[in-house]
Amino acid sequence: MTTVNAYAAQDAVTPLAPFNFDRRDVGPHDVQIEIMYCGVCHSDIHQVRNEWGGSIYPMVPGHEIVGRITVLGEAVKNFALGELVGVGCFVDSCRVCPSCLAHEEQYCDKGMVGTYNGRDKEGNPTYGGYSTQIVVDEKYTLHVSEDLPIEGVAPLLCAGITTYSPLRHWNIGKGHKVAIVGLGGLGHMGVKFAASFGAEVTVLSTSKSKEQDALNLGAHHFAVTSNPDTIKNLQGHFDFILSTISAQHDYNLYLGMLSLNGTMVVVGAPPQPSIVQAFSLIGKRRSLAGSLIGGIKETQEMLDYCAEHGIVSDVEVINMGEINKAYERMLKNDVRYRFVIDIASLNR
Amino acid sequence: MTTVNAYAAQDAVTPLAPFNFDRRDVGPHDVQIEIMYCGVCHSDIHQVRNEWGGSIYPMVPGHEIVGRITVLGEAVKNFALGELVGVGCFVDSCRVCPSCLAHEEQYCDKGMVGTYNGRDKEGNPTYGGYSTQIVVDEKYTLHVSEDLPIEGVAPLLCAGITTYSPLRHWNIGKGHKVAIVGLGGLGHMGVKFAASFGAEVTVLSTSKSKEQDALNLGAHHFAVTSNPDTIKNLQGHFDFILSTISAQHDYNLYLGMLSLNGTMVVVGAPPQPSIVQAFSLIGKRRSLAGSLIGGIKETQEMLDYCAEHGIVSDVEVINMGEINKAYERMLKNDVRYRFVIDIASLNR
Repeated sequence: MTTVNAYAAQDAVTPLAPFNFDRRDVGPHDVQIEIMYCGVCHSDIHQVRNEWGGSIYPMVPGHEIVGRITVLGEAVKNFALGELVGVGCFVDSCRVCPSCLAHEEQYCDKGMVGTYNGRDKEGNPTYGGYSTQIVVDEKYTLHVSEDLPIEGVAPLLCAGITTYSPLRHWNIGKGHKVAIVGLGGLGHMGVKFAASFGAEVTVLSTSKSKEQDALNLGAHHFAVTSNPDTIKNLQGHFDFILSTISAQHDYNLYLGMLSLNGTMVVVGAPPQPSIVQAFSLIGKRRSLAGSLIGGIKETQEMLDYCAEHGIVSDVEVINMGEINKAYERMLKNDVRYRFVIDIASLNR
Repeated sequence: MTTVNAYAAQDAVTPLAPFNFDRRDVGPHDVQIEIMYCGVCHSDIHQVRNEWGGSIYPMVPGHEIVGRITVLGEAVKNFALGELVGVGCFVDSCRVCPSCLAHEEQYCDKGMVGTYNGRDKEGNPTYGGYSTQIVVDEKYTLHVSEDLPIEGVAPLLCAGITTYSPLRHWNIGKGHKVAIVGLGGLGHMGVKFAASFGAEVTVLSTSKSKEQDALNLGAHHFAVTSNPDTIKNLQGHFDFILSTISAQHDYNLYLGMLSLNGTMVVVGAPPQPSIVQAFSLIGKRRSLAGSLIGGIKETQEMLDYCAEHGIVSDVEVINMGEINKAYERMLKNDVRYRFVIDIASLNR
């Protein structure tokens, strides 16, 4: 076992603080990764503060991990020492259920093993990427291109795949009018992917201040949802809406903007339930759906797509010690668009 | 113009009572229909009592109409004098929008003209089937088989197509596990169609008392949703759930029973908004969708399918004077499964 430096939450209300723990020894199928960057996801805050319930403390968050392989298990086949790799939201799953066999481990019947705030098959808590090192089975490890800025790749492991997967699943591309609701860590990736796939992209935001950024990211239009005239003009307009908001919001407002047979997919998960009026769905045979990250195979496909098309997340790199301040800024939407922790700062 | 006998609501709180009004003259493209039977839909109650807002009084409800053609407009091409015909939930639409051109007039961009509680293109209120006669453009008139019991056909015009259409749209058939929520006018038709299409059908009901009926209607299984063990055992079980309940209910309870990529379609429209927890959708990429009756082309297809397969609604025939009592019984789920008014009773 190796003792690693980390930051952890000791409970739901105390700020994150330095913490040490032991990583498991490298098994035959494992790779040991020296973590270089770890993205900061809104779900880190939800879980640190136990807003979804069931949090395990101490908690070392972080599931947008990029680093280099420092030790290879003897049976590892698909990775090389020194290779740049990524780890996303889960590090194991049952491997035998229909979802796992269909390469959709995120929907594992037994429940995937979260990269943090989960329990591995021995019942030990899992610790995430706010740490200097992680040991992961190669089956749950991703290849990362050397050609992209590494810090911009880290958020692809969650924010990237979370938006890529539903756009692919619902076959979004040329000829589709797509709205992205919210322009944060998820939303800005949704804009990049939807535009890259050929869709006509509108960003829906409560804040006019993000208009220029939205256009810079590749959006074709921008609309402020607090303007009733805007809402009225967009009734029945979109084929597909991707809602990235993780605060409680009114689904009906957005459902009304869907055209016949349109689909709104929620990828943000407000802790509180939301309101849906049946008429909002019935009137134009609309669907409200959810989508959860993506499987390992699709995550690799997404990373390869990003390498080919030069897509990364727009990030603000911080030191580990700035994490509590970063959380506060995220809650005020004051980040363009993802905080990424420079994990080297943990050793300084 | 012809003066016809009818029953009408004069406002949202007074019981329905006898009423006379004039039907328009038969235009070149119209058929005049002597109404024989009219089904009683839950939406009649919603609209009579103004529970959806915007009700127009006096209101003559009724949109499950079967009768015989007594006058043919000079330009009518597809119907014959004396022919048995049906009229469903709408009697006109804009005819030029993409939905109308796609034979989905129920989703007309300008709004379909409801058979009652609507306004025709001249702005006159429309009056429905709780009356002895109706004049309808042949394009919005359906052919009805002479081989089925006429009173059992009437509810097909709304309850039938409302359940047939989503089952067809989502391609339900062999190999699918389908749940029908609620065993009323809509639900019992949903069971018949889903079973006829080859699906494995479970009825979900709050009332154990309907078990034998559900099985008699063609369901393969029956589950009482007030039993927590039942709910637990059915988690992730169904590919498709059709919710026919028009009272407020907890969508999450049913969403949890959907398998990966499963869809729940609501066809009942509670006046109050319902609660949806994003996690219920995200966890297995589930969809919550709505569906609204069906277009004229699909309604004819449904009627032809019913004639071919001997499918009708199970009905309790009442006289017009019993309508207020029937409404009260419907609100207690005390009808198996659709009241149908013998319109001849209006002339007695």
